[in-house]
Amino acid sequence: MPKPKRHLFVCMQQRPPGHPRGSCGAKGCNEVFDEFLFQAQQRNTFEEVAITASGCIGPCGMGPNVLIYPEGVLYSGVSRADVAEIFDKHILGGEVIERLKAPADVW
Amino acid sequence: MPKPKRHLFVCMQQRPPGHPRGSCGAKGCNEVFDEFLFQAQQRNTFEEVAITASGCIGPCGMGPNVLIYPEGVLYSGVSRADVAEIFDKHILGGEVIERLKAPADVW
Repeated sequence: MPKPKRHLFVCMQQRPPGHPRGSCGAKGCNEVFDEFLFQAQQRNTFEEVAITASGCIGPCGMGPNVLIYPEGVLYSGVSRADVAEIFDKHILGGEVIERLKAPADVW
Repeated sequence: MPKPKRHLFVCMQQRPPGHPRGSCGAKGCNEVFDEFLFQAQQRNTFEEVAITASGCIGPCGMGPNVLIYPEGVLYSGVSRADVAEIFDKHILGGEVIERLKAPADVW
């Protein structure tokens, strides 16, 4: 693909059940990732938006974590229900969604 | 960690030997990733530079691929011997290394 206008990373870190750090995997990142791919398909954005699975981004207890560059905005506690809004407002519209932003002390 | 000054993603995609797309895994991304972590440790940059493993970034045949944000610069064919230079010149110095940049038709 050409250099994307925005690049979304979804943390896909898995840890065993009961692990003290928790993980985005245990909090539902898989369905969040799938929903981003589905929404990209619906909007046919493959030439301008990259969506990539990533390893651990850091604040595991607040996952699922989703990071958007070039802005470097981290969204935490993202659910499948938030994905269309993130896609339309931020990825396509450039508007940061304050309600979903990770707290300043973790990012 | 606080929001990093630069965020480096190393593609860690693995595919079986002989797979027609190849993979960064087959081209040595593991030792490139380890070397970035080692160089970060040497420079004690954990508060300002994030280093994250990622899934497939795209141009598998040219790997190992390393992507740096917020600039969105993709380096391809990165070897362990290139890591210290990328760290000092680009990650810490902000200078893009033209010789390692992926061709414009793939990024």
